[in-house]
Amino acid sequence: MSAASSPAADPRPLALTIGDAAGIGPELVLQAWLRRMPGQRPFFALADPDHLTRLAQRLGWQVPIATIAIAQANASFANALPVVPLQHKFDDEASSANTPGTLESMQRAVEYVYAGQAAAIVTCPIAKDRMYQAGFQFPGHTEFLGAQASQLWKRPVLPVMMLWAPELAVVPVTVHVPLARVPDLLTTTLIIETTQIVIDDLRQRFGIQAPRIAVAGLNPHAGENATIGTEDRDIIAPAIRALQAAGHNVIGPMPADTMFHAAARKKYDAAICMYHDQALIPIKTLAFDHGVNTTLGLPFVRTSPDHGTAFDIAGRGIAKPDSLLAALALAARLA
Amino acid sequence: MSAASSPAADPRPLALTIGDAAGIGPELVLQAWLRRMPGQRPFFALADPDHLTRLAQRLGWQVPIATIAIAQANASFANALPVVPLQHKFDDEASSANTPGTLESMQRAVEYVYAGQAAAIVTCPIAKDRMYQAGFQFPGHTEFLGAQASQLWKRPVLPVMMLWAPELAVVPVTVHVPLARVPDLLTTTLIIETTQIVIDDLRQRFGIQAPRIAVAGLNPHAGENATIGTEDRDIIAPAIRALQAAGHNVIGPMPADTMFHAAARKKYDAAICMYHDQALIPIKTLAFDHGVNTTLGLPFVRTSPDHGTAFDIAGRGIAKPDSLLAALALAARLA
Repeated sequence: MSAASSPAADPRPLALTIGDAAGIGPELVLQAWLRRMPGQRPFFALADPDHLTRLAQRLGWQVPIATIAIAQANASFANALPVVPLQHKFDDEASSANTPGTLESMQRAVEYVYAGQAAAIVTCPIAKDRMYQAGFQFPGHTEFLGAQASQLWKRPVLPVMMLWAPELAVVPVTVHVPLARVPDLLTTTLIIETTQIVIDDLRQRFGIQAPRIAVAGLNPHAGENATIGTEDRDIIAPAIRALQAAGHNVIGPMPADTMFHAAARKKYDAAICMYHDQALIPIKTLAFDHGVNTTLGLPFVRTSPDHGTAFDIAGRGIAKPDSLLAALALAARLA
Repeated sequence: MSAASSPAADPRPLALTIGDAAGIGPELVLQAWLRRMPGQRPFFALADPDHLTRLAQRLGWQVPIATIAIAQANASFANALPVVPLQHKFDDEASSANTPGTLESMQRAVEYVYAGQAAAIVTCPIAKDRMYQAGFQFPGHTEFLGAQASQLWKRPVLPVMMLWAPELAVVPVTVHVPLARVPDLLTTTLIIETTQIVIDDLRQRFGIQAPRIAVAGLNPHAGENATIGTEDRDIIAPAIRALQAAGHNVIGPMPADTMFHAAARKKYDAAICMYHDQALIPIKTLAFDHGVNTTLGLPFVRTSPDHGTAFDIAGRGIAKPDSLLAALALAARLA
């Protein structure tokens, strides 16, 4: 029986992109295979097999590399790291010459989930600066995947970043923008659309029947009755009322400082935050090593570790694979 | 021997202000006395003895109230809650008629530390709205204490709020202002002056010889080389360089999301944060019940619990005294 016809007995594997070949992605991929568990959903890497072989040798790690076609991924996984080879090869040196391979890895991963050959995508970190220099047109991974999904699935896609850990799930409504621009970028519509996507994905992928959502305020004490800024009253509160009117379990605007301690976190499944650090401070404080970045609103499951390329420690074999392992586990659960 | 002549054998007591009489302050004061420990530095409340007696009776708590002059505080403490009576009396109902008593409690506490009769001040929460209605001219407790200190000690005072817990100490450079105003309010001078006060107080009061300071960035990833906002490069970094040039151990601007997990916190004694929630999210996430608010830059030690009046649960005896107990312990340590 083929994988497609019997997903329970022979589930489709996870597609793991290699990210920046000079970052910690490649060594984390080796680590993730070394730490594989019986019964785990298999994964394959979209990578340069020679590059990974050289890296394993340099680190002294016993990781046999199996260069395969996807159909062999599951059968290979127990005894070797399955690698679906890229057309591009990687230099061992950090170099923008590697960028086309990085991009090919991401593109083909989306094509494989579209074709039903991969169950979900797990992405290793890329270096945005280097990608921009090579002509990459997107602010980041998330937007690239959104655009590619939109093209293949032929429907509009609003990708939404969620940081997830067992302790806490947070969604920043605005992300990589200067703090000074956040108040202007926040709109009632954006908060509603973002929250709606979070609710849909928590239902469909996380299996939470009636997701409980807490929306953070923007200003100290959520504006203290509009005495410390008016956005909480004029922009955020109307979004919450609209979502409540649509039958959703949404509370807020919550004072952001008192919504992330253990007792407060029990009251919601995900927190909608107004800006990057409001979301990332609490989750990285609580779950620094094992947080997972997952993109909601896509027609497929995508997760990634919650860290960057870490060039400063790359190639030494000391990077912690916890976040990638958590990303693989979450992708398997959601797929 | 008088208390003043032998502080070691007979230390001056802590002055505890009653805060808003209709908030949770009064019941926490009763609780703090009930949970007194052998060898603890004694405290006295600046309060209405009859009001506290009625409250203890209503709650069914065995708290004998001793109406005293300060000199008797230490001797009374073991067997009764020492109360130095206010001229004003308190209603049991929440009322702005209580505001003059709240204010008297704060004023007299400062006078007692100025006169050397109290070792330090611990303040229970006030309700700012109600204080404003009664003509209170200060944004909050901290600014009131700063102004009164400046008047009595006849020197300029810049009061600086620090939230302290065993896990983490944070200082917001801007506090109760709309988030949209934060970028404009931040100046290199303000960051330098605030940090200098923190360094001085960590040395003099906390006994840390060479305080290690981490300064948070304003923008995501501390601006990522000024590609996400320029304040980190143009305002914060120059302040750090100036402090380093003055011989201080200061690092930053740090990406705010990755500076508060357990391993990162080991690298500094206090974090200087750019705005309210950047400071308060991590400490309230980590230390919700036992964080302490302490004002640096004053000519005396002042601490307070890290919560508000909690009118919604006041009078029921269910408010947790952990933060007030931690505030009393920290005041005793610093005094």
